[in-house]
Parts: sequence; C-alpha cells; structure tokens
Amino acid sequence: MSGEADDAGYAKGRARRARIVRTAFEAFSAHGYRGASLVQIAADSGVSRAGLVHHFPTKESLLEAVLEERDRVDREQFFSGVTAPVDGLDLLGRFARLVEHNTSNRGIVGLFAVLSVEASDPSHPAHAYIATRYENLRRYLGAAIADLDARGLLRPGVEVEGLAAELIATVDGLQVQWLVAPDSVDMAAQFRRRLADLVTVGVG
Amino acid sequence: MSGEADDAGYAKGRARRARIVRTAFEAFSAHGYRGASLVQIAADSGVSRAGLVHHFPTKESLLEAVLEERDRVDREQFFSGVTAPVDGLDLLGRFARLVEHNTSNRGIVGLFAVLSVEASDPSHPAHAYIATRYENLRRYLGAAIADLDARGLLRPGVEVEGLAAELIATVDGLQVQWLVAPDSVDMAAQFRRRLADLVTVGVG
Repeated sequence: MSGEADDAGYAKGRARRARIVRTAFEAFSAHGYRGASLVQIAADSGVSRAGLVHHFPTKESLLEAVLEERDRVDREQFFSGVTAPVDGLDLLGRFARLVEHNTSNRGIVGLFAVLSVEASDPSHPAHAYIATRYENLRRYLGAAIADLDARGLLRPGVEVEGLAAELIATVDGLQVQWLVAPDSVDMAAQFRRRLADLVTVGVG
Repeated sequence: MSGEADDAGYAKGRARRARIVRTAFEAFSAHGYRGASLVQIAADSGVSRAGLVHHFPTKESLLEAVLEERDRVDREQFFSGVTAPVDGLDLLGRFARLVEHNTSNRGIVGLFAVLSVEASDPSHPAHAYIATRYENLRRYLGAAIADLDARGLLRPGVEVEGLAAELIATVDGLQVQWLVAPDSVDMAAQFRRRLADLVTVGVG
C-alpha cells in the first residue's frame, strides 16, 4: 500500500512539474527570460513558491527544462527517423514543415526569438545552450546542402559557403517580421520559395 | 550677459541630454529596453534622477530619443542623397555597406535585435516604431528590387515576391548568429554573396 501511495505521490509530482514547465514556457514566451516572474509562474501553476523551488531550485534550471521540452517535442514531431548520412531533400523538407508548423505557434517562436537574442550575451544562463543549438543547426543544414551538392541537385552557380547559416538566418529573420506584423510576411511560403530557388527538384 | 548665460545654460543642458541618450543607448543595448534601469542610467550619466526626468519624463521617451538618434546617424552616414525613383544597385550597395559598418558596432546591432523582438508585443512602447521601421525597410528594398527587375539586372528565375522581406530577414538573422558567436558567420560577406547570386552585375 505504501508503494502505491508513493507511486501516486510520484505521479502527482510529475504532473505538477509538467504544469510548471508549461506555465513557465508561456511566461518566458510572453516576457522573455529576464522579464518573466517566478512568483507569477508559481501562482499560475497553482503551486507555492516553495513548491516551485522543490522542482526548480533556480530560474536557470526552469529555463533549461522549458528549452529541453520544446526541443524534445520538435525532434519527435519533425526529425524522428533521421539517420546519418542525411538525405538533403528529406531534411530540407522537414525544416520547411517545421516553419509551417511554427506559423500556428506564436508563443514558441517568440520564446526562441527573445531567448536567442538575450542569450547572445555570454553571461546569460542560456548562452551555451543557444550557441550549441546554432552550431548543431548549421551542421545539420550544412550536411543537407553538401548531400544535395554531391547529388547535383543545386542550381548551377549556387555558392554553398555559408549557405547553411544563411538559411537559418532567413527563417529567424522572417519570424521576427512575422512576430511584429503577422500579415506582413508569409514565412512558410517565403522559405519554400528560397528553397525552390536553390534546389532543382521539388522539396517535400 | 544674461543672454550669454542662458546660452551657456542651454548648451550645458543639450550636452547633458546627449550624454543621457548615449548612456541609455548602451544600457538598452546591454539589457534590452525592459531590463535597463533608469536609476542606473541616471547614475552612469552623472545626473540625478530628477535631472533625467527633466529631459525624459518617461522611459518610453528616452527609448524614442535613442532610436531616433541611431536612425539619424545611419541616415546621414549611409543614405544621404537618396532620391526617388531609387537606383536599385546604389541602394543595395548602401545596405551592404551598412551591414559591414554594423560588424564593428555590436552594441547597435544588439540593441535593435533585442528591441525588434521585444517590441513584437503590441503592448510594447516601441511596437509602432519597430512595425513602421520594417514597413519602410520593405518598401525601400522593394523599390530597389523593382528597379533592378525593370532594368533586367536580376538573374533569370529570381522570384521577386517577398524578396525584400527575405533580404531584411537574412540580415537580421545573420546578426543574431553573429551576436551569439562572432566567429561563426561573416555577415557582411554572406549578405554580399546573397546579393551577387541575385544581381547579374556587381553591387557597389
């Protein structure tokens, strides 16, 4: 009986932790990491400040949990089954679908846009996370571009140097204009136009 | 004599105002609009809190002064003598030189990157400013692209729809990666590569 009670307590604790992460996600999206208030996050999660500190001793640890959760969900939904060596067409198609998906997730997009810029400051607790995230993005997209280049699927004259960073930049920058004025740009269509101009066959 | 004394007082007031704007510029660059502290800005400018409030009754009015000052300096340095109808080659060259200039102005770039994202929230005091700034940028670059298109200077197959927004996005996004890791991207060279791929003649 004690084991069952522990299990129930454990399940309740996990549910509470997940609720805090969801609430923090929304607070960080709306106010940025520095602007979000732990007191408010605790209140909106229906836990005491001590309850929040039990799960997340520092604001940094809460931020880390939020970022990890988002990456996990994206990986599951958009990048499951990707293996090395990468198929460039497949990978670009997955990125294009992720951009489409983001158009209905303003909160997520805003969170990463605010955090990427805030965390450019080396003293920011998410600096290493954001720097590594961009390095990985450039490596994955770079591998996709190298694959397309090797298969002769890039338009003649395309300069591959720096192209991975540029494609990531295009998406990041379109997101900012879209966050400022959602009707001003169609970020998913624009990214697909950019890919169509680079690749000589259709991207899935 | 009284007139001279007034002039001296006026000149001192102007110098004090300019010092506050410079200090605020640095504080907003480092901490974002919301993160910057008026108390700290007053202290770093060598004025009392009342002295700051005399020149800038609200934090919003200080932000506005900082943004106007930066736009004024950029206009003077990079866009003097531009008249309608625009010369597309000339205008793209001016933008490329501005991006080059920005590589030695991390503070300015960081300020606009943080503010553009923070101000995507419609309740942010700089929202209208940032929204109008992007509208103007899209209009100017759109006019440059239309001019190049009319003169037959774009590579065949280039899709002009949304291209102005995309070029602005490319610069904004490259700046974020550069802010996070300055050695990871050569944003000026990358922007010029993008232009070289679009335009069939050299961009100044």
